[in-house]
Amino acid sequence: MLKRSFNINGVNRTVIADPEATLGDVLRKQLMLTGTKVSCNDGHCGACSVIVDGKLTLACITKLERVPDNAQIVTVEGIGQPHRLHAIQAAMMAHGAAQCGFCTPGFVVSAKALLDRNPNPTREDVRAWFTQHHNACRCTGYKPIVDAVMDAAAVLRGEKKVEDLTFKMPADGRIWGTKYPRPTAEQKVTGTLDFGQDLGLKMPPETLQLALVQAKVSHANILDIDTSEAEKMPGVFKVVTHKDVKGKNRITGLITFPTNKGDGWDRPILCDKKVFQYGDALAIVCADTIEQAKAAAAKVKVKLEQLPAYMSAPAAMAPDAIEIHPGTPNVYYEQKIAKGQETKPIMQKAAYVVEDSFYLQRQPHLTIESDIGFAYYDEQERLTIHSKSIGLFLHHAMIAPGLGIEPEKLRLVQNPAGGTFGYKFCPTMEALLGVACMATKRPVYLEYDYQQYMTYTGKRSPMFIDLKMAADKEGKIVAMESDWTVDHGPYSEFGDLLTLRGAQFIGAGYNIPNIRGMGRTVCTNHAWGAPFRAYGSPQSFLASESLVDELAEKVGMDPLEFRYINVYRPGSTTPTGQAPEVYSLVEMLDTLRPLYKEAKVKAKKESTLENKKGVGIAVGIYGSGLDGVDGAEAKIELTKTGVTVYATWQDHGQGADMGVLGTAHEALRPLGLKPTQITLALNDTATAPNGGPSGGSRSQVMIGNAIKNGCEQLVAAMRKPDGKFRTFDEMVAEKLPVSYIGKWAASMNSNCDENGQGNPFAVYMYGVFMAEVSVNTKTGKTTVEGMTLMADVGKINNKLVVDGQIYGGIAQGIGLALSEDFEDIEKHNNMRGAGIPFARDIPDKIDVRYFENPRENGPFGAAGVGELPLTSPHVAVINAIYNATGVRIRHLPARPEKVLEGLNKLEVEPA
Amino acid sequence: MLKRSFNINGVNRTVIADPEATLGDVLRKQLMLTGTKVSCNDGHCGACSVIVDGKLTLACITKLERVPDNAQIVTVEGIGQPHRLHAIQAAMMAHGAAQCGFCTPGFVVSAKALLDRNPNPTREDVRAWFTQHHNACRCTGYKPIVDAVMDAAAVLRGEKKVEDLTFKMPADGRIWGTKYPRPTAEQKVTGTLDFGQDLGLKMPPETLQLALVQAKVSHANILDIDTSEAEKMPGVFKVVTHKDVKGKNRITGLITFPTNKGDGWDRPILCDKKVFQYGDALAIVCADTIEQAKAAAAKVKVKLEQLPAYMSAPAAMAPDAIEIHPGTPNVYYEQKIAKGQETKPIMQKAAYVVEDSFYLQRQPHLTIESDIGFAYYDEQERLTIHSKSIGLFLHHAMIAPGLGIEPEKLRLVQNPAGGTFGYKFCPTMEALLGVACMATKRPVYLEYDYQQYMTYTGKRSPMFIDLKMAADKEGKIVAMESDWTVDHGPYSEFGDLLTLRGAQFIGAGYNIPNIRGMGRTVCTNHAWGAPFRAYGSPQSFLASESLVDELAEKVGMDPLEFRYINVYRPGSTTPTGQAPEVYSLVEMLDTLRPLYKEAKVKAKKESTLENKKGVGIAVGIYGSGLDGVDGAEAKIELTKTGVTVYATWQDHGQGADMGVLGTAHEALRPLGLKPTQITLALNDTATAPNGGPSGGSRSQVMIGNAIKNGCEQLVAAMRKPDGKFRTFDEMVAEKLPVSYIGKWAASMNSNCDENGQGNPFAVYMYGVFMAEVSVNTKTGKTTVEGMTLMADVGKINNKLVVDGQIYGGIAQGIGLALSEDFEDIEKHNNMRGAGIPFARDIPDKIDVRYFENPRENGPFGAAGVGELPLTSPHVAVINAIYNATGVRIRHLPARPEKVLEGLNKLEVEPA
Repeated sequence: MLKRSFNINGVNRTVIADPEATLGDVLRKQLMLTGTKVSCNDGHCGACSVIVDGKLTLACITKLERVPDNAQIVTVEGIGQPHRLHAIQAAMMAHGAAQCGFCTPGFVVSAKALLDRNPNPTREDVRAWFTQHHNACRCTGYKPIVDAVMDAAAVLRGEKKVEDLTFKMPADGRIWGTKYPRPTAEQKVTGTLDFGQDLGLKMPPETLQLALVQAKVSHANILDIDTSEAEKMPGVFKVVTHKDVKGKNRITGLITFPTNKGDGWDRPILCDKKVFQYGDALAIVCADTIEQAKAAAAKVKVKLEQLPAYMSAPAAMAPDAIEIHPGTPNVYYEQKIAKGQETKPIMQKAAYVVEDSFYLQRQPHLTIESDIGFAYYDEQERLTIHSKSIGLFLHHAMIAPGLGIEPEKLRLVQNPAGGTFGYKFCPTMEALLGVACMATKRPVYLEYDYQQYMTYTGKRSPMFIDLKMAADKEGKIVAMESDWTVDHGPYSEFGDLLTLRGAQFIGAGYNIPNIRGMGRTVCTNHAWGAPFRAYGSPQSFLASESLVDELAEKVGMDPLEFRYINVYRPGSTTPTGQAPEVYSLVEMLDTLRPLYKEAKVKAKKESTLENKKGVGIAVGIYGSGLDGVDGAEAKIELTKTGVTVYATWQDHGQGADMGVLGTAHEALRPLGLKPTQITLALNDTATAPNGGPSGGSRSQVMIGNAIKNGCEQLVAAMRKPDGKFRTFDEMVAEKLPVSYIGKWAASMNSNCDENGQGNPFAVYMYGVFMAEVSVNTKTGKTTVEGMTLMADVGKINNKLVVDGQIYGGIAQGIGLALSEDFEDIEKHNNMRGAGIPFARDIPDKIDVRYFENPRENGPFGAAGVGELPLTSPHVAVINAIYNATGVRIRHLPARPEKVLEGLNKLEVEPA
Repeated sequence: MLKRSFNINGVNRTVIADPEATLGDVLRKQLMLTGTKVSCNDGHCGACSVIVDGKLTLACITKLERVPDNAQIVTVEGIGQPHRLHAIQAAMMAHGAAQCGFCTPGFVVSAKALLDRNPNPTREDVRAWFTQHHNACRCTGYKPIVDAVMDAAAVLRGEKKVEDLTFKMPADGRIWGTKYPRPTAEQKVTGTLDFGQDLGLKMPPETLQLALVQAKVSHANILDIDTSEAEKMPGVFKVVTHKDVKGKNRITGLITFPTNKGDGWDRPILCDKKVFQYGDALAIVCADTIEQAKAAAAKVKVKLEQLPAYMSAPAAMAPDAIEIHPGTPNVYYEQKIAKGQETKPIMQKAAYVVEDSFYLQRQPHLTIESDIGFAYYDEQERLTIHSKSIGLFLHHAMIAPGLGIEPEKLRLVQNPAGGTFGYKFCPTMEALLGVACMATKRPVYLEYDYQQYMTYTGKRSPMFIDLKMAADKEGKIVAMESDWTVDHGPYSEFGDLLTLRGAQFIGAGYNIPNIRGMGRTVCTNHAWGAPFRAYGSPQSFLASESLVDELAEKVGMDPLEFRYINVYRPGSTTPTGQAPEVYSLVEMLDTLRPLYKEAKVKAKKESTLENKKGVGIAVGIYGSGLDGVDGAEAKIELTKTGVTVYATWQDHGQGADMGVLGTAHEALRPLGLKPTQITLALNDTATAPNGGPSGGSRSQVMIGNAIKNGCEQLVAAMRKPDGKFRTFDEMVAEKLPVSYIGKWAASMNSNCDENGQGNPFAVYMYGVFMAEVSVNTKTGKTTVEGMTLMADVGKINNKLVVDGQIYGGIAQGIGLALSEDFEDIEKHNNMRGAGIPFARDIPDKIDVRYFENPRENGPFGAAGVGELPLTSPHVAVINAIYNATGVRIRHLPARPEKVLEGLNKLEVEPA
């Protein structure tokens, strides 16, 4: 052990620690300075940034012995505190630069170190600094952070005042449509919001630490699991295996379509007979400390009979492939689409026909926080599981039978989540926590390290798409034929739904009268398929928005003008035959046109042989809701001091808190409440009604409508004959209820039928992306220099939240286009290996124009927003690469070597 | 478990905790808000005070289930932070109201709650509030805290500014003699100073938690210790017994006098053959968690053969008493005093002779913090033991052979100590920690609960004293005969030295030409005797200052005037035959006289039949140093930015930091350093030279002189021919050493001889106490309404520190007089049972007058201070009770029932 004296945030501290311990662990686990976040443990992400003797330092890879005695250490806690913000923190609040907030302390500290050194940086200086110091953000697209640092620098130079940045309440007291900072913003910028790992450190002392025994192969029969040696290891309380599971030991996919050939009971909690993918859990060691648990986990002996691993859909579809789930064919679901006339005859006669094949990769979510949760029995003896779940009631139903617990004895709670982007639409560790807690009757804590998180949580399912389109002489699209194959990994949950998305979104945006096609879900042994922002549409649009460009070229039209004549106008229908609820695309393209022309001129002018520049566009569309009659509930309760909203509007980091507050405050405006009088009681199944999962951009519409309804009930009940409102005491005195369940259902909708036809969504979001790229012809490296989005997400609840969603989604789209993948389990199991974009990978120029067409079925006219920016930005990039170079990338990501290969091919056989 | 949402210090927190857990444990151990201190765990001391929904709450006895959901909790961390102090905190710094600082956060929070409710309190309101809310302070005598609250209230009312309270640097840049706040003050008032229990929570994760198996009887033979069942308990790493001790398994008393019949090797680390006192350690359970350790400790089976327990000196001296340490007589040391002529003939002829018997009780130190420590192997594989030790090098020598470790492989460090007042002059848990760490090779942590602390640390040794004095017709004391018996408990360490103190201080203050007497140290089975502030003198003065009053009465003189003609004047010698170095007592009595007369008039005027008032005085003297040639070393090192002082000036809470800084700053004045340029590197045997133990008010003289010497060496080396000073870089360039060992030794002194004659101390402190009391004749309860002290502690280094020492010592004297005891192991093993004084038990009127006679052998004229205020304040109180009521209490404490008994006797047989 080392005894060191440090001055930490201005206070002298004696620290006794292992010289090999990291500064991050010492700060967090010993000193409980949990503002500093540690996730990658590899120096990849910068969440752990602290300042040591004036130098920006990655605490997660700095061993304590390297921190000199009497060092001056500054963590986020030393920069500013709640109610006493530093200019950087105030500016980050003002710009909505903290979304999930997990990377935020690292950025605050990094920005402090930058401004200490350079008080007058350019935007590019800031972007270079964050890139050089590995500050990764997955939510914001970096732009709001750079905006904040520039403003903070101006404040520190005395050119602005902090007050200039602070939100001013409008005269009408209305926060709807404003830049009111989200309620958790202050805690996020000060590092005082406890994420799962922070709450884990603050658990009761009897909490057991869990370590998993996991499969290191992708497909095998289990012969034996021997825990005897592990059970004897120091500190071990119990080693839990499938034998300890009280219930069915399966997580059910639950909402399986009737034509699904599987039954949804395919995912074991703890593997019993087979291993289906790398990382599958075989046993859980429960011990006093994590070190003990890990040491004992290494002593569990597992005998396996290895089986052929089918690591892609074609492999699993091979004739000799065995059934991964015996009794269920590997192709377990098929989805047809049939709209209008048979397409074959049309294709034969059409003036222009193109066809091509595409592959969209297994995009990893790359949240900065890994996966973390804990469980305990509450005071009512309910098994209570905290996790990053964004579908609390959904997961409740998915895991209760497997655990073997009465539903009323299971309670799920969401911890503040350091990003999910959809991976937590699937249960991850919830059932494991439940099994361990039930088997030990002790509180239990489980944290995946980043490699575990990468290999043992779901990913975006790759799709193989063959697409064919035909246009008439005028360039009107007349028919489309599609064939799509979904590699969904070994677990079926939502796999059929995802396959249906192909029917809904391939070709969306255009009035295509005649469509025929077939999609299928394939079971493989690669990472299971989990929802990811814009679920199913990036795959669909890669095919259709690439092919539309090819068709335009064939027709001899500019890609914008070709789209212009084909996009939805009154009378058009979607691929599922639904009439769009608004028609924004024409106006968007009209607005984009001059920008597009200008960009094209600029690209041409700036292009050189070494750096070729180009411009690409793509249309993107997504529904706000789950298919069919989606709906939600929320509880609105009058209190002595204001109103409390109970809701399950789970937060990925997108701003659920602001969503709830903005909607409730608007709905309660007759009462004239201040925002601070509205208390949020969110995301606990014991206290809040079922709002449904937070996915598919449904929350603002579904839960928003439920909140609005509940608030309206309350306001009506409070209204006195004279038009004034009863107080809480008056309500109680008159024996009027103070609590109201708000409800809403999309009863105007219908599920798609066997031909993929129906009106699945009440509200859609629309967008047109324009990417400006520069391709280095020597290296093949593509740089996105600008991204423009025409966006219609209905009326905007909160400008900071919506901007933040757009920027972040676009950044993920650029990563999807150029770098991200989870194919190689060794190479891609960490942030950098998997291709996370850093600040300089995302353009500083992101231009978003809103078309606020109010939605009839959205609360106060709002649609959703989260999915839109990741529908097709990557295709705009791909189209721009083609525009710049003549190279069309059909198999994503467009990493430099692939582009270079394309360039080389062009030289050999010029297009 | 309960899941609760709290707003803690303005930040929303989710807390998951056992409903039975205390709020104190949840705040400290789960949320690591270690500003809140927990010690008594019984609601006795208020160190754990927090504000819950506006109400002052004792966190240590508040179960979490009683804290409502959404409660607003304020801890000291939420009131003010370093560099951002609340007015209460700034005022406490200004008044030196934080000494050891352990109770301080509780007082800050309590004061906040008071001022929130009552912005304009009277001093009595403040005292009543703290009393009612159980805020106990053992260091300050409460007065500085009340001063601080009054000033803070004025600031909050806008009548003063915080800046008015803040220390202003004098124009000459000199801090010697000023009210410069001690360096640790800011951390103490903000709760950011980590005490042992806080450091314990911040230890490395592999740290084992220790629980002792202790004897529940006071004397027994050990037949068997069976650890087999305990070893199997969950989380247990090892159960350590005497068999695991590598060395002699004894703590050596070390400085045993040659005539001592014991050899000093009487105290086992872990008992092997015998149990010698209640609480003796039999085994140490080392486990992952403290709960596991305690559960396993309960499973250790100990077979004992009970022996007769000798719970007082007379019992152990009975003819049939067996030897507690076989081979060593229970009376193991005798100390004679023989000064001048044989006294018998003088007594026979003297005009006035009085004699009486006295007993001073086993005073408990009653620190607010209990006993806490930890150990680990450092990076050089040194066994490193952190504790509250105030004698690091002393303890190093006392425990190394018992542990069986090479001295260079043992390192001792003092943690910030929440008070010791001398009990930590003895090793307590150091050797236990060492044994456990050596046996496990893991870091280990041990914390005594308050009952363990009370029963298993040393106490002030009771003395039985028979005393006889004679005066001539003029009232001059001519002879004294003394007999004193020390009940030293089972362990001999310093027991002979303590007995010598009887020879040195019985009758001190007066020129008594002829003295004969004999004292003895007796081994018993009650709590072992440990040093306690003013070591040996409160017993001595109880006898001589009571008897002086009796003699004055017999002579027919006023007690003040009788003292006046007898106190030291040039030509006088002390009982050991030494000539005093200064003669302050005459001047003191002259100064006191008018105050005394006024007090007597007032007492007479205010006396009623129910409340009788009286005034008493007592002289008090103590040496500054250990006997004979005491000395110290300190290292002074020039650095780039200033000077670092390496010293072992251990801190009880008295202000060692300020002692070092004040002395070094004064000695370095030629260099013109700011105080903040002087870095303190204190109390680690690996880095600081041997300064000796912090006891006997020796530090300011011994270490102060060593620091002065080292600084002078450095200044001389830095001085250039032109009178200017070399910089650090110049020193290095000229290859001059930058580091100097300062040394000092009291070579003018000599140890006392077999007749108790010698010049043991170079510097003494002198005082005269005056107590004003009111005795309720119905209840017997005595209230001290005022205390006045004429004090000569030489030149004053720091006024806040010296004032604080005086107030605190007086408060302990009042407790000694009226309430404190540790006799009944069951009844007296907690703060209230043992009679700790609260704010209203200590007078608000404490009037101290300093007589700053410079000491030739003190650095810059300073003497010590810590012991003086507890030499004889209790006797002033006892004399005042006699003055008020005619009841003389000879057996302390003067609890109401005892006074009442005296009053009743008076009625039956009037004096």
